[in-house]
Amino acid sequence: MGQTLTEKILDDHLVEGELEPGEEIGIEIDQVLTQDTTGTLVWLQFEALGLDEVQTELAAQYCDHQTYQFDFKNTDDHRFLRSAAGTFGAYFSRPGNGICHNVHKENFAAPGKTLLGSDSHTPTPGGMGQLAIGSGGLDVAVAMGGGAYYVDMPEVVNVRLEGELPEWATAKDVILEMLRRLSVKGGVGKIFEYTGPGVETLSVPERTTITNMGTELGATSSIFPTDENTQDYLERLGRAEEYVELQPDDDAEYADELTIDLSDLEPLIACPSMPDKVVPVREVAGEDVEQVIIGSCTNGGYPDILPSAKMLEGREVDLKTEMIVAPGSKQASEILARQGWTAEMMAAGVNFSEATCGACIGIGHVPGSDSVSLRTFNRNFEGRSGIEDDNVYLCSPEVATAAAIAGEIVDPRDLAEELGDLEDPGFELPDQFDGSKTDIIEPEEAVDDDLVKGPNIGDVPLKDPLDAHLEGSALLKMEDNITTDHIIPATQDILMYRSNIPKLSEFTLSRVDDTFAQRALDADGGFLVAGENYGQGSSREHAALCPMYLGIEGVLAQSFARIHKANLFNFGLLPLEIDEETYEKIDQGDDIEIVDDVAEAVRSGQEEFTIRVNDDWEATGTLDASEREREILADGGKLTHVKQQHDEGGAAPADD
Amino acid sequence: MGQTLTEKILDDHLVEGELEPGEEIGIEIDQVLTQDTTGTLVWLQFEALGLDEVQTELAAQYCDHQTYQFDFKNTDDHRFLRSAAGTFGAYFSRPGNGICHNVHKENFAAPGKTLLGSDSHTPTPGGMGQLAIGSGGLDVAVAMGGGAYYVDMPEVVNVRLEGELPEWATAKDVILEMLRRLSVKGGVGKIFEYTGPGVETLSVPERTTITNMGTELGATSSIFPTDENTQDYLERLGRAEEYVELQPDDDAEYADELTIDLSDLEPLIACPSMPDKVVPVREVAGEDVEQVIIGSCTNGGYPDILPSAKMLEGREVDLKTEMIVAPGSKQASEILARQGWTAEMMAAGVNFSEATCGACIGIGHVPGSDSVSLRTFNRNFEGRSGIEDDNVYLCSPEVATAAAIAGEIVDPRDLAEELGDLEDPGFELPDQFDGSKTDIIEPEEAVDDDLVKGPNIGDVPLKDPLDAHLEGSALLKMEDNITTDHIIPATQDILMYRSNIPKLSEFTLSRVDDTFAQRALDADGGFLVAGENYGQGSSREHAALCPMYLGIEGVLAQSFARIHKANLFNFGLLPLEIDEETYEKIDQGDDIEIVDDVAEAVRSGQEEFTIRVNDDWEATGTLDASEREREILADGGKLTHVKQQHDEGGAAPADD
Repeated sequence: MGQTLTEKILDDHLVEGELEPGEEIGIEIDQVLTQDTTGTLVWLQFEALGLDEVQTELAAQYCDHQTYQFDFKNTDDHRFLRSAAGTFGAYFSRPGNGICHNVHKENFAAPGKTLLGSDSHTPTPGGMGQLAIGSGGLDVAVAMGGGAYYVDMPEVVNVRLEGELPEWATAKDVILEMLRRLSVKGGVGKIFEYTGPGVETLSVPERTTITNMGTELGATSSIFPTDENTQDYLERLGRAEEYVELQPDDDAEYADELTIDLSDLEPLIACPSMPDKVVPVREVAGEDVEQVIIGSCTNGGYPDILPSAKMLEGREVDLKTEMIVAPGSKQASEILARQGWTAEMMAAGVNFSEATCGACIGIGHVPGSDSVSLRTFNRNFEGRSGIEDDNVYLCSPEVATAAAIAGEIVDPRDLAEELGDLEDPGFELPDQFDGSKTDIIEPEEAVDDDLVKGPNIGDVPLKDPLDAHLEGSALLKMEDNITTDHIIPATQDILMYRSNIPKLSEFTLSRVDDTFAQRALDADGGFLVAGENYGQGSSREHAALCPMYLGIEGVLAQSFARIHKANLFNFGLLPLEIDEETYEKIDQGDDIEIVDDVAEAVRSGQEEFTIRVNDDWEATGTLDASEREREILADGGKLTHVKQQHDEGGAAPADD
Repeated sequence: MGQTLTEKILDDHLVEGELEPGEEIGIEIDQVLTQDTTGTLVWLQFEALGLDEVQTELAAQYCDHQTYQFDFKNTDDHRFLRSAAGTFGAYFSRPGNGICHNVHKENFAAPGKTLLGSDSHTPTPGGMGQLAIGSGGLDVAVAMGGGAYYVDMPEVVNVRLEGELPEWATAKDVILEMLRRLSVKGGVGKIFEYTGPGVETLSVPERTTITNMGTELGATSSIFPTDENTQDYLERLGRAEEYVELQPDDDAEYADELTIDLSDLEPLIACPSMPDKVVPVREVAGEDVEQVIIGSCTNGGYPDILPSAKMLEGREVDLKTEMIVAPGSKQASEILARQGWTAEMMAAGVNFSEATCGACIGIGHVPGSDSVSLRTFNRNFEGRSGIEDDNVYLCSPEVATAAAIAGEIVDPRDLAEELGDLEDPGFELPDQFDGSKTDIIEPEEAVDDDLVKGPNIGDVPLKDPLDAHLEGSALLKMEDNITTDHIIPATQDILMYRSNIPKLSEFTLSRVDDTFAQRALDADGGFLVAGENYGQGSSREHAALCPMYLGIEGVLAQSFARIHKANLFNFGLLPLEIDEETYEKIDQGDDIEIVDDVAEAVRSGQEEFTIRVNDDWEATGTLDASEREREILADGGKLTHVKQQHDEGGAAPADD
C-alpha cells in the first residue's frame, strides 16, 4: 500500500509506535522554534536539563509578540532569550526582525524536515513540504534535549485542489472555504494534505497562507507536496540546495478526502467572531470600516503586501478608516521599502508599523468601541483584539485594501467595476528575498555565553523522582469543575510573571483560597483534593508546574480534565481518582498517606492505590496511566525523565 | 528704546497689561495645538463653552502619544478627537502621522504668529520665528474660545551665537551646552532669544532642535529671528508665502545675555537622569550600550535621521545593541523611504517604528533592567523610559548612531578615526518636504459632524456662578502638605479615566479617605479643610476639576500651593486662608457657612470673609486674589467666565 506524504516524513522520523491513526507515536524532531512569550519558559526548562547545547539540527528563537517592548520585562525577556540562544547554540532573531513563522520560512524551513514549535501556527511551512507541529513549551524543551515528540497519530485527510483561482480570489479564500465547510473543529486529530492539479497553480507563499491557517481548523498540521514552485521559492531565498522532491504515492490511502475547485472561489470573509463564520464578501458589503490591518503570519509577507500597495498606488485610504500595515518580517518590509512601495503606501495614508505579531494578539491597534476592523489575520475570537465586544473580520489583503479605499466592506470586484481603473494586482514574488541578514544572530557569532536573567526571570525547579512513601496534609479541598484559570489566573497582572515560577506560584489557587500558596510552601509536601473535572479549561502547563514548585505531591480528584492530567504527569504529580464517597469523607487538613511503595507501584503498572486518612480509615485511589506516563511520573516529571536518560548516558536522544 | 523680537510679537498680540517682566499680560492666540493625551479634556472643555467653532485662526489636533493604541480607550480617544476637530473646525492629524511639534512645524507653524499648545514642547517652532508657548489644557480651550492667554511677562534673555559648528558637533550640542551652563531651572520665567552671526549658520530644523529643548531649561519659550534660511525652509515646505522677516531692533534691551561660540562645541551627552547632567561624550566613552533610539520631537525629522542613515550605510548595528528609529513625522519617514534610506537602515539592523512620541514617554521600547539606552530625545528623568532605575543618555543622532555601530558610547570623532572611512554626514534638507498630505484632515473635508464619545469619554461639567450664600459640611479635614497626587492619584489605573470626569472623580482624595467621593456626591455641596501648603506637587487641573464635579464649594486651608490655587479659581472653588487656631477648631462634619454675600464680596475685592461654624462660633477666612481671578471665581470658573462673555455677545473674544 502506498504512503501519504505525511506518512513518508513520519516514517523517516519514527522512533516509537506505529503509524496507525489514534496510536501514540514518537518522532524525531529536526528543527525547533520558539517565540518570546513561550520561549523564556522553554529555555528555563532546557537549562534545568543540564545540557550544554541543543541537540536538534537547528533551533531558532524569535522575538515577535512583545516587540513594542512596553514593559522592561519584555525587553528583559528578549535579552534573556538572546543569551539563552547564544549559550545553548540556537539562532536568535532580534526583536523587530519579524514573526517566527515568516522568518523561519524565509531562513530555515526545509522540505522533509520535522519542525516542532511552541506556537500554534507552527504548521506554516507545511506549504513548502515541511512537517511542522505546534506544541507546548515543555515538548519543545524536551525535543531540544534530544527527546522524541509524542503525539497520537493523526488521520491524514486529502484536500484535492482543482482548477485555478479566478480574479480577486486568493489563497486566503481557499482556507476560508475550508473553514466554511469544516468549521473550527473540523481538523481535530487530522493532518490535511493538499494534492491535485490545483497545487501547481499556487506559489509557496500562497500555500503557506493555507497551511498557516489550518490551525484554525484544529488540525495537527497541514502540508503540501513539493514541486517546481517549491524549488523556485527556495532559489529566490538563496537556499536552492535544500530542495527535496516530496510527493505522496499514487496509491496512498487517505482517511478522508474532499475537493475544492479553485475556479469556483470568490472573495470570502470570516465574520465576527470566529474564523469559520465565512460568507462571500458581497453578503456583508456596505458595512462601515474604521480600521484595516494588513499583516500577521498568515498574510504578512512581501507577496501579500504588494497587492495592497499596488491597489493603493495613486489612491487614498478613506478618511474615516485607519489603515495599518505590520509586515510579517523585516525582510518583507525592507524589500517593499527598497522598491518604493513603502513610500507609496505612506502617501496613500497607511501607517507602517514594525514587523510584529502585534495587533493579531491584541498588542497594539486595539479597535475602538463599537467599530469594525478588517484584518488579514487568522483569528478573530471575541476579545482577542484587545476589546471585549470587538467586530473583527478576517479576509485577504485585497479585500482589506478594497475596504480601506471604500471606507466600507466591498467585494473588490465591485469596487473595480465602480472605479474603472482598479485591476486585480495578482500575486508576485520578488526576484530575490534579499533583506537584512544582520538581524539573525548565528550561534557562532553569539554575543552572550551565559544566561542573562533580569529580575523577573527565575529558575525552573526540577522535581526529584517519586518517593516510595507519599504522605502529607490535604492542603486544599475544592469543588467540581476547578479550571486551570482557578489554579493559575491568566490575567495580565499575574501572567506577567510567567518566566518567574517562584513569584507566579504565589498566585496558585488564590482564587479558591489566597492562603493556599503560603500554606503549601510551609507544609513542604501535601495533597490537593477536588471533585469532578479537575483542571478543565486552558492547557497551560503552569497549572501543574506551580503546584509542583509549592511541593504538592499529588491530586486526589473524582475525575481529571484530559490535558491537565497529562500536565500532572509531565510535572511529576500523582493524579489519583477517588470515588464520591471518599471525596465527601476527606476534609481539608486531614493527613493523607499512600500505603504502597508508590514509586515501584507506579512503574509496575499498579492501578489501585490505598489511601490512608488520619491513620484512621482507608480508601482506594485509581491511577489511569500509560506505560510512558508512568515512567515520566516515577522519574519526577518529563524534564527529570529526559535529564536522567542523558545523565545515564545510555539512551541516544532519539530513542527516548 | 528698541524692542526684542519677543516684545515685537507680544506687542502685536497684546490685549491686556504691559510688557514689563513679572507683570501679567493677556495676549491673543493665533494658533493652538493639542495632542491625544491632553486633547480629550481640551475638547470636552471647549464643548462645555457651547461654541459652534474654534475662534483662533487655526487649531490642530494631533494623535501622537498613544498611536500604538494599546487599549481601546486610546483608539476611542483618537476617534473622539477626530470628531471634535471635525465638529468644531480644527485640522486633524491621524494617528501615525507623527508628533504634534514636527507635523505642526511642517504644515502650520508661521513666523510672527502666536501658538498655544497643551504640550510642554510647544515652543519648538520658535526656530522659525513663531512665539509658541506650552500651557495647560484649559488655557488652550479658552484660547480656542477666543479668550486671551494670560502669562507673567517673562524676562527676555539674549543668547548670542558666534562662529560655526565644527565637524561632528550639532544643534543638539548647542542646547546641551545651554543646559550644561544654566541647568534645568535656568530658564524659568524667561524667553531665550537667539541672535548673532552664528544664527545664519543653522538651518531651521537645527534651530527647532534648540527651541524644542529650551523647555528643559524651564523656559517659557525660545525663539530665533527669521532670515534667508527661514525663507528657504518655508519654500521647501511649499509655504513660501508665509515668510515674514522678523528681527529684534539693533538697540533692543535684554534682561540678560550670554554667548555661545559654536566653534568651541564638541559632541556632548546628558547623563542619567537629568537633561542638564551634560559632559563631553569622551568622558563617558566605553560604556556598553544595549539600546539606541533615534527620534522624538527634538531630533526626529528627516534631516535628523539622514545623518544616521548615512553613517550606517554599508555598516551594521552591533549585535548586542538594539537600534530603533521612530521618525517624528510620517513625512520624514516617507521621504527617507522614497530615497532608499529606510531600506539601507533596515539592512544595517535598524528596527523602524511608526512615527510616534512612543519611547520618549515610556510607551514602547522600555529599556531592559540595568542597561544603558542612548536616545536623541529631550528628557531622561528617572523612570520616564518606563523602568524605574533606567540609565538614559541624551545626545545627537550622530553620537547615538556611533554608539550603535560600536556597541558602546564613543565620541564619533574617535570612531571616525578608528574606522578610517566614516565621515561627518553633515546636515542636509530635502529639496521638498513632499510627504503624504492625506493624513491631515482639513476642517472642510471633515468626516464627522458630531462628537463620537466612547464609553470612557464623559462630559465635562460647567459650574454655576458663585452663589450669594455658601453653606455646607466640612466633608474632609486633612493634614499639612496634601499633594495633587493625594487629590487625584496619577497611577495608570486611575489616570486612564482622564477623559471621564465622573469616573475619575470617584478616586478624588481616595488616598486620604476612600469614602470621601461618595459622601461629597451625596452631600451635594460642602467644604474641604486642610493645613499648610494644600495642593502642592503636579499642576494637574483634575485636582480642582474633580472636587468641583463632586460639588465642593470651597477649600479652607492654612495656606495653598500656588498653581493649585490658580486651578481652584479656574474651576470656581473658593480658596480661603484660615489661621492655625481656626484650623484646629474645625472638625470634620462641622457645618460651615460663609456669612457674606459671597458672589458680591468676591467681585468687589473684599478680602476677609466671616466663617460661621455649627451656627455657634465665627472665624475669618482670607481671599487673596487678583481682580481677574475674582471675576473668574465669581463667574463659576474660567470656562463659565468665557462662556458668559460669549453668551452676552458683548466682549470681542480678544478682549477677555
